[in-house]
Amino acid sequence: MKEKLSTESYKGVRDFYPEDKYIQKYIFEKMRQVVERFGYEEYDASIIEPTELYKAKSGEEIVNEQTYSFTDRGDREITLRPEMTPTVARMVASKKRELSFPLRWYSIVNNFRYERPQKGRGREFWQLNVDNFGIEGIEAETEAITIAYKIMLNLGAIESDFEIRISYAGIIGIILAEKFDLNTEEKRDLIRLIDRWNGKKISDTDFNKKIEELLGEEKSSKLMKSLVDGEIRKISEAQPESQLCKEIISKLEKAGINNAKFDPFLVRGFDYYTGVVFEVFDKNPENNRAMFGGGRYDNLLDIFGEDKIPAVGFGMGDMTAIEFLKSRDLIPEYLPNTDLYLCITDKKYSEFTEDLAQALRTQDLKIAVDYSFKKLDKQIKTADKKKIPFVICIGEDETKADEFTLKRMIDGKEWKVKREEIKKLIVDSI
Amino acid sequence: MKEKLSTESYKGVRDFYPEDKYIQKYIFEKMRQVVERFGYEEYDASIIEPTELYKAKSGEEIVNEQTYSFTDRGDREITLRPEMTPTVARMVASKKRELSFPLRWYSIVNNFRYERPQKGRGREFWQLNVDNFGIEGIEAETEAITIAYKIMLNLGAIESDFEIRISYAGIIGIILAEKFDLNTEEKRDLIRLIDRWNGKKISDTDFNKKIEELLGEEKSSKLMKSLVDGEIRKISEAQPESQLCKEIISKLEKAGINNAKFDPFLVRGFDYYTGVVFEVFDKNPENNRAMFGGGRYDNLLDIFGEDKIPAVGFGMGDMTAIEFLKSRDLIPEYLPNTDLYLCITDKKYSEFTEDLAQALRTQDLKIAVDYSFKKLDKQIKTADKKKIPFVICIGEDETKADEFTLKRMIDGKEWKVKREEIKKLIVDSI
Repeated sequence: MKEKLSTESYKGVRDFYPEDKYIQKYIFEKMRQVVERFGYEEYDASIIEPTELYKAKSGEEIVNEQTYSFTDRGDREITLRPEMTPTVARMVASKKRELSFPLRWYSIVNNFRYERPQKGRGREFWQLNVDNFGIEGIEAETEAITIAYKIMLNLGAIESDFEIRISYAGIIGIILAEKFDLNTEEKRDLIRLIDRWNGKKISDTDFNKKIEELLGEEKSSKLMKSLVDGEIRKISEAQPESQLCKEIISKLEKAGINNAKFDPFLVRGFDYYTGVVFEVFDKNPENNRAMFGGGRYDNLLDIFGEDKIPAVGFGMGDMTAIEFLKSRDLIPEYLPNTDLYLCITDKKYSEFTEDLAQALRTQDLKIAVDYSFKKLDKQIKTADKKKIPFVICIGEDETKADEFTLKRMIDGKEWKVKREEIKKLIVDSI
Repeated sequence: MKEKLSTESYKGVRDFYPEDKYIQKYIFEKMRQVVERFGYEEYDASIIEPTELYKAKSGEEIVNEQTYSFTDRGDREITLRPEMTPTVARMVASKKRELSFPLRWYSIVNNFRYERPQKGRGREFWQLNVDNFGIEGIEAETEAITIAYKIMLNLGAIESDFEIRISYAGIIGIILAEKFDLNTEEKRDLIRLIDRWNGKKISDTDFNKKIEELLGEEKSSKLMKSLVDGEIRKISEAQPESQLCKEIISKLEKAGINNAKFDPFLVRGFDYYTGVVFEVFDKNPENNRAMFGGGRYDNLLDIFGEDKIPAVGFGMGDMTAIEFLKSRDLIPEYLPNTDLYLCITDKKYSEFTEDLAQALRTQDLKIAVDYSFKKLDKQIKTADKKKIPFVICIGEDETKADEFTLKRMIDGKEWKVKREEIKKLIVDSI
């Protein structure tokens, strides 16, 4: 017996059939419009990077447990990029002297993480990355957040659909470590827990339980109390770093963005953030969680032995965006590229049909020809299944008269047309 | 001492700085225009595939020596896609009953092969893939070749720049095996040599030497003679399969494509071809070689236990395209997305400037603001280095009068403009 291969894709990655690709392209086109209006230029890089790139600053969990790392045929340790920031930092460091700052770059790339696949999270996801380099002031963060906000609106969201939470990397850790006398590991683990709790990735009960495991009963109940009664928040707000966040919020408000707020419990998962961080939260009660975020990472060029360059960036993935759009009924209906489907009653009209198709293509119409030579009604059904908006059937009459019946599929309306009238009619009647 | 990471990318892959990405986008946009005019719809899939997908039909050399294959954290054997055809066959097989044929699909994706990097060949290359399914007749091959031809023209080539070589998979092997009494391995190795020789990848001398090593002196001199005196060609041309090639060439000529010819020595590197194959050759004497190609592969769905579906496709890589365009001086000059650069004399005018930028962005202008607060001449120099076509500087006068000096960078020409006149002037004066 013949061995039979599975037609399934690798676990946790997606096949994009034209209907799926259509949605992904729609989303990234909406994102692209916004970032380009802010003067960002597109760059790109390979999915393969030297593994050492991630050892320095991406965060332990990602490198040790979540990367796709392996050894190539030349014994080099390589990793499939889990995120774009180290790559963009590498590229900027590499040509620092030739580049002119401020630099505004974006990319639309895939990333890989070995995680359990779940709704809105796969092992491969595509992501818009937006980074500016060389701006020291809060104009950089304000711009990044404004872009994130405008992308949400460009995707069809309204302000009340989401919330922008802003904090300063590290302050919550410093406050907690001091107040509860934590060592480095306790602090790190606690921060990670708070991140998951704040991002609604674990329930209140689980959070409580895990904190008790980590700090013991006494400390943990003190901690919970000070979280709940607002004491920690108050201390956080009094820090000078928090003033920066508030200035940004005020700048955003002046520009008409009213859903940003200070959130001291916001922690971003990467070790490289050095200043203001932010996350965009879905306010849908059934999907209340962080969708994406970013922040300032002024020191990342360090790892290449280069001087600091101020840097602010964020990444926005396609899977979370699709989940958001689905929950808001904002997914666009699929429309194929193709404008017109030409059916043929007999093989002998192939050349005539191809000639007509070519003439229409030079007018920038998108034409598919059905060379299956099935029965006409089957060919028309094919066009219908493909959602192609117009059909013309070619048989003896058409080749003789060079006159055609253009049929609009949505309502069956028909027009008798000469060759040179087809383009205008399609454009006007779609 | 601090450890210092290299800023180099992994060997054989490319970083795309905005200038590089611009060229790649230009090339794929030109390709996309053509395939969409022929009614092809875009699909996509992950770069990671189960390794077994390539074991069946991609050809021994590629799987054993050239793939990036490894084991994931869940012990699955996976491979970074070396080519797209097995993936598209997998996707079609997976939804065969829901899809309506003829199917016309294209993708623009990256592939990985572990090869020695050289001019026009890297370990990662991006590729347009064009496939139609469900067309039994030569209309399928004719369409694929026509698309390849029109892409070349859309990239700026003229007909005499390149040549389309057409053959039928396997016939040269059958003829040679019979005539020279070759066993399976000899046949396979000989075919591979002829492929490299025909594609100008090895010199005549090397070809001669290797054939002698393979077949011994006597057979090899007989073979060389029958190659040189045209005997093999004559036998090939007399095969019934060659008639199909000639019919396609005649169809192409009727459609105005006059650089296609029958070439019995054309061999494609993949095992899955079952019929007509073709390659596009660069006719530049300094770079005379196969650029890309494809052919018919009617049996590939077999490996998934599915019935045959007629299929014809080709792939066209970005690296060979770039080499071709470079050699013909057809690479477009870099132009950033950004239309206008706003410079600021002092931090206190930030909000005014941002407000102006926002107003212009809503008119779909692409605006970058220089928040470096360096001296004005430095900011203008930055705009110049970035090749941004227009600059406006904002200082006290501008904020008071809401009147601006728009400067065109290419010739220094200046206009005094009101806010609402900026868009029109930029559009008209670029």
